[in-house]
Amino acid sequence: MRQSQLFTKTVKELPKDETSYNAQALIRAGFIDKVGAGIYSYLPLGKRVLDKICDIVREEMNAIGGQEILMTALIPKENLVTSGRWETFDVLFRLAGNDQKEYSLGATHEEIVSPLARKFILSYKDLPFGVYQIQTKFRNEKRAKAGLLRGREFLMKDLYSFHTDQADLDAYYEKAIGAYKKIYDRLGLGDLTYLTYASGGSFSKYSHEFQTLSAAGEDLIYVCDKCRVAVNREIIAEQKACPVCGSEQLDEQKAIEVGNIFKLGTKFSTPFGLRYKDQAGQENPVIMGCYGIGPSRIMGTIVEIYHDDKGIVWPESITPYKVHLLSLNENEQADRLYRELTARGIEVLYDDRELSAGEKFADADLIGCPYRLVVSAKTLKENSAELKNRNAKTGELVSLGELTAKLP
Amino acid sequence: MRQSQLFTKTVKELPKDETSYNAQALIRAGFIDKVGAGIYSYLPLGKRVLDKICDIVREEMNAIGGQEILMTALIPKENLVTSGRWETFDVLFRLAGNDQKEYSLGATHEEIVSPLARKFILSYKDLPFGVYQIQTKFRNEKRAKAGLLRGREFLMKDLYSFHTDQADLDAYYEKAIGAYKKIYDRLGLGDLTYLTYASGGSFSKYSHEFQTLSAAGEDLIYVCDKCRVAVNREIIAEQKACPVCGSEQLDEQKAIEVGNIFKLGTKFSTPFGLRYKDQAGQENPVIMGCYGIGPSRIMGTIVEIYHDDKGIVWPESITPYKVHLLSLNENEQADRLYRELTARGIEVLYDDRELSAGEKFADADLIGCPYRLVVSAKTLKENSAELKNRNAKTGELVSLGELTAKLP
Repeated sequence: MRQSQLFTKTVKELPKDETSYNAQALIRAGFIDKVGAGIYSYLPLGKRVLDKICDIVREEMNAIGGQEILMTALIPKENLVTSGRWETFDVLFRLAGNDQKEYSLGATHEEIVSPLARKFILSYKDLPFGVYQIQTKFRNEKRAKAGLLRGREFLMKDLYSFHTDQADLDAYYEKAIGAYKKIYDRLGLGDLTYLTYASGGSFSKYSHEFQTLSAAGEDLIYVCDKCRVAVNREIIAEQKACPVCGSEQLDEQKAIEVGNIFKLGTKFSTPFGLRYKDQAGQENPVIMGCYGIGPSRIMGTIVEIYHDDKGIVWPESITPYKVHLLSLNENEQADRLYRELTARGIEVLYDDRELSAGEKFADADLIGCPYRLVVSAKTLKENSAELKNRNAKTGELVSLGELTAKLP
Repeated sequence: MRQSQLFTKTVKELPKDETSYNAQALIRAGFIDKVGAGIYSYLPLGKRVLDKICDIVREEMNAIGGQEILMTALIPKENLVTSGRWETFDVLFRLAGNDQKEYSLGATHEEIVSPLARKFILSYKDLPFGVYQIQTKFRNEKRAKAGLLRGREFLMKDLYSFHTDQADLDAYYEKAIGAYKKIYDRLGLGDLTYLTYASGGSFSKYSHEFQTLSAAGEDLIYVCDKCRVAVNREIIAEQKACPVCGSEQLDEQKAIEVGNIFKLGTKFSTPFGLRYKDQAGQENPVIMGCYGIGPSRIMGTIVEIYHDDKGIVWPESITPYKVHLLSLNENEQADRLYRELTARGIEVLYDDRELSAGEKFADADLIGCPYRLVVSAKTLKENSAELKNRNAKTGELVSLGELTAKLP
């Protein structure tokens, strides 16, 4: 992408009420735009990052057999009355239709997926399966001051699984944990992310969160370093010990919840009449699990963790562009290089604008692509370009012929 | 995809209030599920079709330089007050936030994109550009009885363009018409779709709709066969003649509006203070255009047009799977063929279920993939499979070795 064509620019003025680092950095770098508290638009650079996060999530969901669907944002009141959540769910947006009906905006989709699954589950032969969607969700939060970490409108991947019995759910749940770990690894969050034990409700002792260590986190978790797991505040109040090894040496840390998974059991299958016939012809309730992860919150989390005082430092797996090519008044040579690199399938943001070198360097640091490539009179004298890793203090001259080999 | 794993099945019972053919067929074939009037979930087969339609639209938008973004579904009341549409826009969903603010659900996004563009447009050097999104839109329709043709919640691609002057908008508008024609051609709707003249508002004499001939259409258009254009009802009331050649021989036809484009002029840039400095340093209002197309409505339109009494007949460009492979009790050989075809990148829905031949044939016709491939004891005796085009009456035996060459 030629930066002269990109309709966004880096921004100096921030919305006055924006106090979170992740939103400030993403607004300044031109990735998102604030429409209201907890309500952000994704601009071209931000949309690319969001798409890459979604693609990683999608691939790992498909790898465990998840079937992708797209449910509705409008959820009829009667569905939430059936589950008993119409009155009690405090963050629901409620609205009236011109058809004399009331609706809520989807904050989670058990009330849509359960009656949907009911239409297709007759016998044990139809189980197990998992369905997921990546969709905009809505939560009518009183306060939303954490940027992309707590949105009124945000992107969510929610997977729901359906089973004949507890053992089958348990096995699938472990598979889902494995998929989630792969996702965090691929996002560059693996080392900082802990499987965290949380309250389980009536159907199982624990549910689980995935918590990523960050000073910006709104949660406190208690880490067992030996087991590489943690417990959340609810659990620490009940049992001051690691649920795996029993150790009481737990380390309090601030963290961001980047995923959560529950064994729902029959909580929704009972009210929605979701049953199957077993081999003996007996009817039993279907056992359910649910598995959430928020791509937009992930984006905010990564910015909280991967930045320095100059701007964002994107992990390579989700960077909007791999290479940021800067021309310092040498557009003819830089144009050629841009065409060469893009022809080889390398994603390049090409700063071909009429700006000073200082402005271009500052923008490149703020935007945060992993590889900066500078073409100037000085580098061309050596028939080279200067390649610098976003994390490195200095770059190195690489001869133009060797560039594509040098780019990992 | 192994059909035994697909969580959906073809459905015999339809919702009682579902009167539209497109929704009936798509529900019966397991592509969509009805949540409420004009509110549908997309199931795995339906999601695949929707994604393919979106990909075609996205490619053609990118080809004319469109930059993809994702705006918000929640639109603050004040944005619509600024444009004057809060009170007058009859299909708005309005809702209250826990933050003491009122919102609408995005039915169209001029009120978000105009203040967004204002942040990045300073001078004529920042123009022109086009931004688009593919996003769920909401319209609080009183009646929604046409299936995917008129949704309360539906998918929309909306492109907005920004220009220094009328001539630049006019040139871009023609380019957008070209992109739209390519889209309809690729979707298999080209021959049936007419550029249709509609009222233009205060800024230009005409706006344009793209109308696809169909008995299911809610619109009436008046076609000039010679010019391959049409006019809509508003225009025919004013001038009973083709706007291109002046002919009064216009043919009344039912049609579905599958796209619409407007020259907005300064309608939104004036209230939102969207201005630019020209080369002389003078401030002028930015000139805007907007360009809409609904992927979910397109899906419904295609089903209305491409079906027979047995089910849907998907155009190859958007079929959920290219080949529907049916095993008639020969899963060992069919498994091998399934692996071979998928390894070659061919999208195959593989009916490996324990069902009768009759049920499998009926499902294949209902689902409507373009190529049906049957493996049975009879075909294997000839070391062959039976290949039948969805539109053909009979199939032909193709030897297993020549199959991939035979599949277009």
